[in-house]
Amino acid sequence: MSNKIPVGILGATGAVGQNYIYLLQNHPWFEVTYVAASPRSAGKTYREVVASKWLLGANIPEAVANLVIEDANIVEKAKGRCRFVFSALELDSKDEIKALENAYAAMGFPVVSNASAHRWTDNVPMLIPEINADHISVIDSQKKAHGWDTGFVAVKPNCSIQSYMIPVWALMQAGYEVKRMFVSTMQAVSGAGYPGVPSLDMIDNIVPFIGGEEEKTEKEPSKIFGKVEGGKIVPFTGLKVSAHCNRVPVINGHTACISLEFGDKKPSLEEIDRIWKSFRGLPQELDLPFAPVNPIIVRPEANRPQPRRDRDEDKGMAVSIGRLRTCELFDIRFVALSHNTVRGAAGGGILNAELLKAKGYIQ
Amino acid sequence: MSNKIPVGILGATGAVGQNYIYLLQNHPWFEVTYVAASPRSAGKTYREVVASKWLLGANIPEAVANLVIEDANIVEKAKGRCRFVFSALELDSKDEIKALENAYAAMGFPVVSNASAHRWTDNVPMLIPEINADHISVIDSQKKAHGWDTGFVAVKPNCSIQSYMIPVWALMQAGYEVKRMFVSTMQAVSGAGYPGVPSLDMIDNIVPFIGGEEEKTEKEPSKIFGKVEGGKIVPFTGLKVSAHCNRVPVINGHTACISLEFGDKKPSLEEIDRIWKSFRGLPQELDLPFAPVNPIIVRPEANRPQPRRDRDEDKGMAVSIGRLRTCELFDIRFVALSHNTVRGAAGGGILNAELLKAKGYIQ
Amino acid sequence: MSNKIPVGILGATGAVGQNYIYLLQNHPWFEVTYVAASPRSAGKTYREVVASKWLLGANIPEAVANLVIEDANIVEKAKGRCRFVFSALELDSKDEIKALENAYAAMGFPVVSNASAHRWTDNVPMLIPEINADHISVIDSQKKAHGWDTGFVAVKPNCSIQSYMIPVWALMQAGYEVKRMFVSTMQAVSGAGYPGVPSLDMIDNIVPFIGGEEEKTEKEPSKIFGKVEGGKIVPFTGLKVSAHCNRVPVINGHTACISLEFGDKKPSLEEIDRIWKSFRGLPQELDLPFAPVNPIIVRPEANRPQPRRDRDEDKGMAVSIGRLRTCELFDIRFVALSHNTVRGAAGGGILNAELLKAKGYIQ
Amino acid sequence: MSNKIPVGILGATGAVGQNYIYLLQNHPWFEVTYVAASPRSAGKTYREVVASKWLLGANIPEAVANLVIEDANIVEKAKGRCRFVFSALELDSKDEIKALENAYAAMGFPVVSNASAHRWTDNVPMLIPEINADHISVIDSQKKAHGWDTGFVAVKPNCSIQSYMIPVWALMQAGYEVKRMFVSTMQAVSGAGYPGVPSLDMIDNIVPFIGGEEEKTEKEPSKIFGKVEGGKIVPFTGLKVSAHCNRVPVINGHTACISLEFGDKKPSLEEIDRIWKSFRGLPQELDLPFAPVNPIIVRPEANRPQPRRDRDEDKGMAVSIGRLRTCELFDIRFVALSHNTVRGAAGGGILNAELLKAKGYIQ
Repeated sequence: MSNKIPVGILGATGAVGQNYIYLLQNHPWFEVTYVAASPRSAGKTYREVVASKWLLGANIPEAVANLVIEDANIVEKAKGRCRFVFSALELDSKDEIKALENAYAAMGFPVVSNASAHRWTDNVPMLIPEINADHISVIDSQKKAHGWDTGFVAVKPNCSIQSYMIPVWALMQAGYEVKRMFVSTMQAVSGAGYPGVPSLDMIDNIVPFIGGEEEKTEKEPSKIFGKVEGGKIVPFTGLKVSAHCNRVPVINGHTACISLEFGDKKPSLEEIDRIWKSFRGLPQELDLPFAPVNPIIVRPEANRPQPRRDRDEDKGMAVSIGRLRTCELFDIRFVALSHNTVRGAAGGGILNAELLKAKGYIQ
Repeated sequence: MSNKIPVGILGATGAVGQNYIYLLQNHPWFEVTYVAASPRSAGKTYREVVASKWLLGANIPEAVANLVIEDANIVEKAKGRCRFVFSALELDSKDEIKALENAYAAMGFPVVSNASAHRWTDNVPMLIPEINADHISVIDSQKKAHGWDTGFVAVKPNCSIQSYMIPVWALMQAGYEVKRMFVSTMQAVSGAGYPGVPSLDMIDNIVPFIGGEEEKTEKEPSKIFGKVEGGKIVPFTGLKVSAHCNRVPVINGHTACISLEFGDKKPSLEEIDRIWKSFRGLPQELDLPFAPVNPIIVRPEANRPQPRRDRDEDKGMAVSIGRLRTCELFDIRFVALSHNTVRGAAGGGILNAELLKAKGYIQ
Repeated sequence: MSNKIPVGILGATGAVGQNYIYLLQNHPWFEVTYVAASPRSAGKTYREVVASKWLLGANIPEAVANLVIEDANIVEKAKGRCRFVFSALELDSKDEIKALENAYAAMGFPVVSNASAHRWTDNVPMLIPEINADHISVIDSQKKAHGWDTGFVAVKPNCSIQSYMIPVWALMQAGYEVKRMFVSTMQAVSGAGYPGVPSLDMIDNIVPFIGGEEEKTEKEPSKIFGKVEGGKIVPFTGLKVSAHCNRVPVINGHTACISLEFGDKKPSLEEIDRIWKSFRGLPQELDLPFAPVNPIIVRPEANRPQPRRDRDEDKGMAVSIGRLRTCELFDIRFVALSHNTVRGAAGGGILNAELLKAKGYIQ
Repeated sequence: MSNKIPVGILGATGAVGQNYIYLLQNHPWFEVTYVAASPRSAGKTYREVVASKWLLGANIPEAVANLVIEDANIVEKAKGRCRFVFSALELDSKDEIKALENAYAAMGFPVVSNASAHRWTDNVPMLIPEINADHISVIDSQKKAHGWDTGFVAVKPNCSIQSYMIPVWALMQAGYEVKRMFVSTMQAVSGAGYPGVPSLDMIDNIVPFIGGEEEKTEKEPSKIFGKVEGGKIVPFTGLKVSAHCNRVPVINGHTACISLEFGDKKPSLEEIDRIWKSFRGLPQELDLPFAPVNPIIVRPEANRPQPRRDRDEDKGMAVSIGRLRTCELFDIRFVALSHNTVRGAAGGGILNAELLKAKGYIQ
């Protein structure tokens, strides 16, 4: 009998749900024991429902393939079957997702969510553990506000911003204000789930638009870099962002071209290189299982990072940076890459859960 | 017997050379009568050399397929065979190209060039006919300086900037200073010629680097927007550009994400829309054969322009714009697209030749 | 006022419907005056419904963009609006399609269909005009059986077989029995419509299965090569086919690898080459607008035909053949290619309608 | 100090050489200590030469990156630096490769080769260890013929046939003669090395031709299934093969559509399924490090195997089979897939070396 913490996956059959199941194989702390999805999947085995649309290599992990899927809407079903849940819910309305995540929290479950529904709830932390691990303290006021005991909701930000948030934070933490940031992304199709982007749009083509993505890209950094005050997160207003988001024919790996303008104090390129290479955060200090050894990898080659070559660095949890150079308009520019379904989705969620466990919020 | 002007193609077997031959089929004014390439192709028919690497549909145009290729280095060979030449030379050194183009000019041939060698020669015009047709006046001082009679060199700028130069010019001409421009491109593989970019780099991948491209992108607008003074072109210094150039798995069509900052006078989005839709230049006035009816097409759809859908607008000579909106950092942003081997290369060269003929420089 | 025959498109908003509208621009005989689709599109303009999913270049043809879509289920709506219809219906059940196509026929409309519903109705001709134009005579018994006056149904076969049926027929007609045929296809994604095949299945991947395709490929030749007896088509049983059908990341153009076994009389490779190059059918004799000049193009290059280079030959209506050589097991083998949405779908349908008009069945 | 056998890689900088270096990281028996390539790479570190064209993820394995490359033509250089070599030589002429491989053998090195030069030397075994491990006995007569002591040459067959040879062998070994085989392949671009296939040929396209591939595919099975007689391998003449070989836009993984005709004794589909699932060969018996647990994986899904989903099964060493069904012309047909650069190239070579070590030929 395993001593691991049993965990449930809400929205287990979708692309993000599949990624959780794939990445949690052999996890040292957590073990998937419960899978929930829409009513029409309920009652069937995971294999039956997912076999024809499994996205991650040849085989569904055996331990999950034979689990019977439950209806995610019937919160009671999860009782006694797991001790916390990852939410990869894909409902039509954010309000429904919010309500359902709250219902799981009310039932006592910590909810570690990939959904965007609760990202702007002010007592819900939006975590990148290398940056804002201290935000988890708002969970206490969240619990109090709802009268919840062990349950709560914590979320992660959008996948498209993961590649440059840690590098920007590393500079800020080293004492350099970052005032303005241009972002132009080339995002992988896996970010749109399955079936997602039609191949007729992605052969000999790119699509210079992703619904809602630019808005998230411009807004979410303010909460991530925010401060905890009175049990809530107060957004940081010192950084302005402009984003152009594009879809390109790449399976995994979001690439971003970035230009940064600093405040009065400006680091040299050598200083930036040094800061990035030596950056470590709390996940590295705590030696969390999913923490990359070096959160930021700096590539020396002229034409890197590239999605196919660099996305899997440190199991897909490190971000890769290259082409650091001065900018004709702002101060510096560079290219950043992260694995959108690992660091940017399920892997990021798992790291959040590991942090929450290390801090005693998941037991 | 045709009354068309006989024209030669230097570098006829390469990708750009092929495009000239493809686009000049049935041209009302010009007719390809002479093809020149490297010594190792000389003496063979065009079909023999090119059949296995022809890039433009099924068949080499019959009229050219049976021409015997001459050695481009032996300038005398061209005598009596054509009245002007398109240069698509791909030599290792720019100095060699310069010298060879000059030699053709010295022999009396107008040289309409795609090569970058002469782009910064101050009495050689770098033409986008909708923008700076008046620059052709420096040809007179060029001829005088060299003691050339009918021969001269005129060039076109790099393919990557074609999609947004006319739209930016349209705004400048309407009285709005453009001070700063961010550019992030997603460029087609045809821009690198054949064999060019390996498929191992372009399946499930993008490459965030194109050698020399960002430098050209940032520098060439200053000459294009420059003024003729004393028989030379004096670069315009009022616009600063920062460029991120990327290669993506698209056959044809360079896409650019653009953010612009105006001077004190700022147009509304409606005003910009109106300016772009009504813009016409000298090629339209002169009704040149390769001139697009509307140089700028403004797309109303949320997710356009896209390379495969929009690159062929008006035979590949129109640029397509979409997603005009305000920018969080500068004033406006938008997406621009042009066909890199038509408007951005051979088609642009042909339009230049048409302008030069209309103005009496080619006869 | 146009003298062209007004035509309606049933299923006008789908991929095949769009192709009809695209290809019928400037058709010398036919003009789209009526577009019908599902009830939820009815009442909107074609542009409103299709703008975001238009597949064929930048713009919906203006003449159709502003037509108001009617409900295809309400057959009466078509009355007086067109003189015949192209059916590109995509309903869930073949029985529904059959019933609806019959209803249009009963109302007096010739129905030229792309749907597979009526392919095995024995008094409905399944036409490739170069092969079996004589099959249209069964329309008379079809009309009689139903008591229809001007209306009837004629269909075309599946897109995947178009590339090799005419070449095989040319050999049969020249007196060479073809007894056995191996077929292995690499089919374009446009064959699956839009959204169709997910990009997650078509980047760095192929799918060795297309539902129902191998069955159609193996069975349809028997009807196409059949004989008219007693007002019905009696299938030809002399040719056995084995098919492997695969989906590959190509926009347009189905490629097939073919091995053929002849009867006792076997043509030489030179004889085959001669037969293919000189083959002409009734559409060529009648000089129908969509008839390719040479139905079969034989490529001399070692590595052709290729979809992107060869699919558009003669406006997409010619098939291209290459690599003719002896087979280690059967007699000969070769590679065949045709444009699946032109010759294989809408273009083939238009050619059928042209034949039917030339023969007096459409007026 | 490592107790592993030091091994050299000839042609270490090419695509196959890179694969050896990648796959031999952490190999339990072998350790790369020597890298040799063309004269122009000699004297530089492996990193210097390969950094810009490294194909296998983000980083060159550290242990090899700093090795100084030697000139592969100077055989003496290898002395004392390694105990055997993998040959991934890519010279222009097969005779040169033969001569060079022989020179290494003469110097005492076992040469385990991927090159095709020696495939038809009758005392050189062409090994797929699950099939013809007994062929290694010809090495003794090879050594004797040349007067070599410890040195010899052993080769592996072409990558394109790997996916179906073991399945066919499993049936033959179970007592079912296979008389005729149709093969139609869809092969990955990595099979052509780097730069290899231009992206202009592989975006929205396939190429139905690979030089020399069909000939190898048709001929090599006869030697692999051959018998050792008098110190030589006598080809098997009982199986005739016809192959159509195609290049498709896939990074790794060759897919083959296969139809088989048996002799008089014909297995049922159930029997075949049972034979394939239970098949084990000598590598499995000997538990060689690179031996897949199940050499043949039978997929139950309707649309598998697919390259991206199935190529990495059992570290890329298992072949995946699907769609087993009866054939309209022969007896059965199916789809087979194997990883062309692992099982089909470097991984296959390593398995050969492991077998040779287990049998005492490498020490």
